[in-house]
Amino acid sequence: MAQLITRSNETMENAGVGSPSIRFRKQECLSPRASEVQVRFLMAPIHPLDKLVIGGRYPVKPVYKHMGEDILGYDGVAEVLAVGPQVDDLYTGDLVIPSKFGLGTWRNVASLQRSDLEKIPRVKDLRFAAILRVSVMPAYFLVEDMATLRPGEYIIQNAGTSVMAQMVIQFARRHGIKTINVIRDRDQASAIMIQTALHQLGADTVVTESELLHNAASILENKKVTLAVDSVFGHSGRALMKALSAGGTYVQLGFLGGNQETLDLEPNDIFGKQIVLRAFRGSAQLASRSLVQQQALCDWLVHLFNEGQILLPPLGFTDVPWSGENGANEVLEAIRDAQVGELGRSKPMILFEMQEDSVDNV
Amino acid sequence: MAQLITRSNETMENAGVGSPSIRFRKQECLSPRASEVQVRFLMAPIHPLDKLVIGGRYPVKPVYKHMGEDILGYDGVAEVLAVGPQVDDLYTGDLVIPSKFGLGTWRNVASLQRSDLEKIPRVKDLRFAAILRVSVMPAYFLVEDMATLRPGEYIIQNAGTSVMAQMVIQFARRHGIKTINVIRDRDQASAIMIQTALHQLGADTVVTESELLHNAASILENKKVTLAVDSVFGHSGRALMKALSAGGTYVQLGFLGGNQETLDLEPNDIFGKQIVLRAFRGSAQLASRSLVQQQALCDWLVHLFNEGQILLPPLGFTDVPWSGENGANEVLEAIRDAQVGELGRSKPMILFEMQEDSVDNV
Repeated sequence: MAQLITRSNETMENAGVGSPSIRFRKQECLSPRASEVQVRFLMAPIHPLDKLVIGGRYPVKPVYKHMGEDILGYDGVAEVLAVGPQVDDLYTGDLVIPSKFGLGTWRNVASLQRSDLEKIPRVKDLRFAAILRVSVMPAYFLVEDMATLRPGEYIIQNAGTSVMAQMVIQFARRHGIKTINVIRDRDQASAIMIQTALHQLGADTVVTESELLHNAASILENKKVTLAVDSVFGHSGRALMKALSAGGTYVQLGFLGGNQETLDLEPNDIFGKQIVLRAFRGSAQLASRSLVQQQALCDWLVHLFNEGQILLPPLGFTDVPWSGENGANEVLEAIRDAQVGELGRSKPMILFEMQEDSVDNV
Repeated sequence: MAQLITRSNETMENAGVGSPSIRFRKQECLSPRASEVQVRFLMAPIHPLDKLVIGGRYPVKPVYKHMGEDILGYDGVAEVLAVGPQVDDLYTGDLVIPSKFGLGTWRNVASLQRSDLEKIPRVKDLRFAAILRVSVMPAYFLVEDMATLRPGEYIIQNAGTSVMAQMVIQFARRHGIKTINVIRDRDQASAIMIQTALHQLGADTVVTESELLHNAASILENKKVTLAVDSVFGHSGRALMKALSAGGTYVQLGFLGGNQETLDLEPNDIFGKQIVLRAFRGSAQLASRSLVQQQALCDWLVHLFNEGQILLPPLGFTDVPWSGENGANEVLEAIRDAQVGELGRSKPMILFEMQEDSVDNV
């Protein structure tokens, strides 16, 4: 039997937005049809994006349903178990990642459309593959596509401990572009630990929100800040925008600060400083590339990683075992924890255990 | 003697921003040097932009000075009196307009660099030439350059009675693009007068700010609003942004609402609705065109006007006579009135009187 984690829309409507019911479900797993591929998920992260999806606040909705419930999880890596008769370019054992959003990766086995999957090369650590679609590729697009960044110029970003931010630091550094990384206020010991980790990764400046607020002039002195990447919104996003140099670009990546905060523009932010404000969507940037380019990008990113030129986030992962029905609570608990968004936790990564029964019954 | 209107920076610094001293000055007018052209101004409007310049809040500063004071006025039309020995493409009697911002058009005669001036064809009404640089060309750029607008789509704009807005209506209509024009709340009689005038010009919808606030759903029903042009900021700008369809572009043209108001973005304005926010600067759009293209654009716009395809704003002008030292008070008064920004007044247009002494003494 396939095991999956769903979100009940019905329950959410009854209970009001923000109180959706996350459920562990079982479903018979049919053989792949003509253009389908049957896969076994190996790892799937729990991203802030998933939190937005669960809350109904992410614009791209889950594509697959079970009993009318959305199948959750947007990122991850799977291996091919079987292919339908019309699929001639994937084989059992190939590694695949989602080629689009909303695939439902929080399930152990699934039959999916071939076009929903992107084949990737063998990878030194599956964790990199599991975050390729939602953290690595968007970080690459942020550095490449959002502004014309020249060596010596700066990107300022908040949520500096996020996996995405740690990837932005690395892609920026490869181009000689510097980063100012804003982390939330926290105790000194953990702030120093984070600063050390980010500096080792190539970060130029790591500051807390309070430090940026109170010492902006000296922190920003002689820095041309061309791009602001805001994952928080509200006051934190406002501070990034204030830090931008004239002509800079503000990009909204998300709103970890919740959806109650506003970002208050002053008349001369846009008009006087000529700042452009826009959203970032990884899916839109991916779609702006041809299928051949998308495949080449995946291959190249895995290659960079296998060569050690791009590293996994040193702030690390928390393993969450998926051990079938009996272990469902641990996964559901990890999802709930991620929704609370406690400070300084490392990325939860669901590890699907190879179970005899799941393979037998697919 | 040349007569000119200046802004004293010194006085402003002493009195605090917002209290600059506007002065009527006289200056000896020398013959044009090698690459200079001596001109006599015929008409010069008083634009909201001038108000920003006087307040020190416009990014492009006045270029010409007299006794350390900025020479004011950014738009207008002049005729050539004499040219310097190196100028071989302008002749006495030619009509010229500023080719760039900050020229100081509130003066009767001046010697200016040839490169500061753009020659225009003979024009049916000099008022059109006098607003070409600051109202007509920017309106054209707004419709052409800011978003991909398709027939049937909408531009929403506030300050609907402004000369710029009346030009946007006309350029939009030429492309089959519709306009929603927001005017400030006012008594019913003058609201109806304005609605009639704007509808005759080609406006599709004319609403007051209160109407938009309270009946947004029915006003916007089935309308794809692709571009918002905000000249006011604050709550008025916020209402325009809320009216935008997904993927739309918000352009900040100015902030007539004053520089105290903020425009408060909600998390899903940018992220969920994928709205882009940017400033508009006519000078930047002009500079994106070659000198040959700029000249061709001027010629074509004057041609359209002479043919009756583009009309002067039906809401009209208020004549302000420039009658030398004795009449200086009337001009200074008109500038002060414009700074107050009273509702529903027509555009003040300074008419430079042909005075014997000004011609004799140039």
